[in-house]
Amino acid sequence: MPERFATDRLRDARQISDWAETVDVIVVGLGSAGACAALEAHRAGARVLVLEKQAQGGGTSARAAGQFYLGGGTALQTACGFEDSPEEMATYMKMACGPGAPADKIDLFVKNAVLHYDWLVEQGVPFRPTFIPTTEATNPPGPDGLTYTGSEPAYPWCEFALPAPRGHNVENEGDSGVVLMGVLLDRIEREGIEIRANAETTRLAMDENGRVVGVGIREGAPESEEEKWLAASGGVILCTGSFGFNEEMLARYAPPLLDCSPVGSEAEDGLGIRLGMAAGGDAIRMDAGCVMIPFSKPRSLVRGIIVNGRGERFINEDVYQAVHGDVALKRQDGISYLILDADSYSEPLLPFPSAGQADTPQGLEEKLGLPSGSLVATLARWNEGAELGEDPLFHKGAEWITTLTKPPFRAVDLRCETFPYPFFTLGGLRTDLDGRVLTPEGEIIGGLFAAGRVSSGLPAQGYNSGMSLSDCTFFGRRAGRAAGTILPSH
Amino acid sequence: MPERFATDRLRDARQISDWAETVDVIVVGLGSAGACAALEAHRAGARVLVLEKQAQGGGTSARAAGQFYLGGGTALQTACGFEDSPEEMATYMKMACGPGAPADKIDLFVKNAVLHYDWLVEQGVPFRPTFIPTTEATNPPGPDGLTYTGSEPAYPWCEFALPAPRGHNVENEGDSGVVLMGVLLDRIEREGIEIRANAETTRLAMDENGRVVGVGIREGAPESEEEKWLAASGGVILCTGSFGFNEEMLARYAPPLLDCSPVGSEAEDGLGIRLGMAAGGDAIRMDAGCVMIPFSKPRSLVRGIIVNGRGERFINEDVYQAVHGDVALKRQDGISYLILDADSYSEPLLPFPSAGQADTPQGLEEKLGLPSGSLVATLARWNEGAELGEDPLFHKGAEWITTLTKPPFRAVDLRCETFPYPFFTLGGLRTDLDGRVLTPEGEIIGGLFAAGRVSSGLPAQGYNSGMSLSDCTFFGRRAGRAAGTILPSH
Repeated sequence: MPERFATDRLRDARQISDWAETVDVIVVGLGSAGACAALEAHRAGARVLVLEKQAQGGGTSARAAGQFYLGGGTALQTACGFEDSPEEMATYMKMACGPGAPADKIDLFVKNAVLHYDWLVEQGVPFRPTFIPTTEATNPPGPDGLTYTGSEPAYPWCEFALPAPRGHNVENEGDSGVVLMGVLLDRIEREGIEIRANAETTRLAMDENGRVVGVGIREGAPESEEEKWLAASGGVILCTGSFGFNEEMLARYAPPLLDCSPVGSEAEDGLGIRLGMAAGGDAIRMDAGCVMIPFSKPRSLVRGIIVNGRGERFINEDVYQAVHGDVALKRQDGISYLILDADSYSEPLLPFPSAGQADTPQGLEEKLGLPSGSLVATLARWNEGAELGEDPLFHKGAEWITTLTKPPFRAVDLRCETFPYPFFTLGGLRTDLDGRVLTPEGEIIGGLFAAGRVSSGLPAQGYNSGMSLSDCTFFGRRAGRAAGTILPSH
Repeated sequence: MPERFATDRLRDARQISDWAETVDVIVVGLGSAGACAALEAHRAGARVLVLEKQAQGGGTSARAAGQFYLGGGTALQTACGFEDSPEEMATYMKMACGPGAPADKIDLFVKNAVLHYDWLVEQGVPFRPTFIPTTEATNPPGPDGLTYTGSEPAYPWCEFALPAPRGHNVENEGDSGVVLMGVLLDRIEREGIEIRANAETTRLAMDENGRVVGVGIREGAPESEEEKWLAASGGVILCTGSFGFNEEMLARYAPPLLDCSPVGSEAEDGLGIRLGMAAGGDAIRMDAGCVMIPFSKPRSLVRGIIVNGRGERFINEDVYQAVHGDVALKRQDGISYLILDADSYSEPLLPFPSAGQADTPQGLEEKLGLPSGSLVATLARWNEGAELGEDPLFHKGAEWITTLTKPPFRAVDLRCETFPYPFFTLGGLRTDLDGRVLTPEGEIIGGLFAAGRVSSGLPAQGYNSGMSLSDCTFFGRRAGRAAGTILPSH
């Protein structure tokens, strides 16, 4: 009788008589996390094999806007004339990445963010030493290097941490994830790291000591292809991304996200999380998602006010789009309208539909089907504060405060049912600072690493643009180094 | 070298040479789920051993109010003159237990709820055939059998499902979980089912086929006590309750609950969830909790209005306390005040503190530090509707609508920071309809069952009083039957 584990995703290595190949480190998934893991493992002296189930590497990172969240005084910040400190950055991130932000990962990251930026530059990732104010930011981003990408200048964050621009944008006209991945993939090729494309990882192999020692794969398109086993003496690094495209997993772990629209590569089916759990790994914060409402391009639209289904404001409109998205989805049942007057209105760059237009606040309120008098009262109250340059309710930044009095009044429809909010999942495998996958008891699973969105990383439950790429690359590198350096503690 | 799994919570059965005992079914944890599982497994012909880590059985169930959520036309409903149907009950539960309510479990439960009630009565659980209106309900409950325990008569549920009282209250003066557990424990004793108290389960044993075949235990108080191994040929049923008392687990899976106050037995440290995950089990909806704000006794307090930190209403005040709690904690940052006037005020039965008192709405608003004009406007708007007997914003039931105009105006402080909301966790192991623990791939883990709050059950992400006891006992019974009946599919 064959020996087996409770799940078919895990196989007893003693049952595998025919190992097709043996390397030191196997990296599963070739997005930015996998690329950085592969590079560092290789440079640590390991023989590395990268498995990519799609025809070529790149993953969701290659489709990303291409921003890194970095700071604490990077060369780019300095070149653009901005000061920043690791301490301010840590304070901000601990607020922005929560509730329950991972203090240990944030502390390590902010201490090393300057060096991580330098490393990216050394690899050849281009950053133009120019700053672009939020007011002039375009969609997709232009080639300028530095910008604000989060809620740093917004209330309440600005009261706790000195704002600094920390969006480090890879140079390109348009989305630049493709440039980033071009550079990293080029490095991998030049350093002679082997990539196996069209190779789907099917299972993990575990030895008699509970250590992960290899993977099963199927190569090529046909499902009928025979499973092959590849051994990895140093470890397996899972870099397979999120589970946003797996509806069954969303239903089990994060049902509200089913109403939203996943972004990234359709390859993100949560396989790595399931493989890691099969090996005994803990999966944490599985309800967390980055949910975005990218209405604020042009940025002048922030002068409008956002109201819920009761015609009430619920947020300062100048927060980062993923703060707004999270609050709108989880606290306001996915109902959000942007209210503008003739002076503040311009066409949103993204095709959010109009929810109505009228010559009076009351007329607009009726068109939206809001409770009688609600929007009228909200606008009156807003204008009363705006006359004084104040937003006593939500403390929107003074630069965005204008009265909204000139007809026609318009509502941009930011409801989830109209324009399903783009999202990606943030929950995943629990890892230590070197990307080692941990069990629910906190034990290290020998030979198993994870980095990027397959894991719960820096943005545990709150997100700013660039945090995922930073998490993927920074902790991908650490996992690669740890796996590539054969240590007794493995 | 000893063979082992990635986690020490799991042991290779082949390494165990010395099995202290062998039975058919081991039940871990003797609350209501464990008691029902033990009874049904025993009655199916299995030799059952129950392990309880505390000095005696009862668990959180013995501390519970003692209500079951049942309906569809139970003998008690009929005796009290109420009609109900499984269909209406299913419709309601699918709304109330979500988002992402488990349709399959709910359908099975409502189809069998009448029989489950009869079974409880057969065991000797007393229900007095009297109905008590919500208005007269006391805290703790009195001896009357039938009551409303959820949001059935409240908006929006009443628009979708015909309300019926489904709270089936075990007869007692005061909390009656102790009566329920007395009956069940007495049955267990009379039927000669063996209970091992002060026995802490430490690990699961898994055989070469990935099947759970036993448990490790330590008996008696001292940690130094040697680990003993007990074999279970039919299966192990985990009934160890929730993880509300494990702060590390809360931090990993449900950080907002760290601000609240766990209810139940301190034994609820999530051990069973961790054991199940060690065996490869999926843990789902781990962020879900039943969070309560039990302000509404006396029920007349529902005539007040509830406002948030901006002085706005956010819910119809007549919803079930766990709906209010969930919304207040997760949508309003744990800020909730109950506003009353002289006519509607009476002392809350639970010691919620006063947040202030004033002769005018404006005075009260100032005392609470609410934004200027906010509470004044909210009260004016409320009174405008109340004059017409209406609540156009939230559709509170007409019986609770009165104007709030007579000074003094008072605020009861329902903030989480003042009175940490009582809660218990709802997330746990993923199980099928027979309590079999499933992997993230949906595979059945042979020999491993779970029931009650160690699993994700009927109240997946929404709660009404009585749903947990019903889930524990109904699915506990099913797990016991399945484990006790040796089937090839195990």
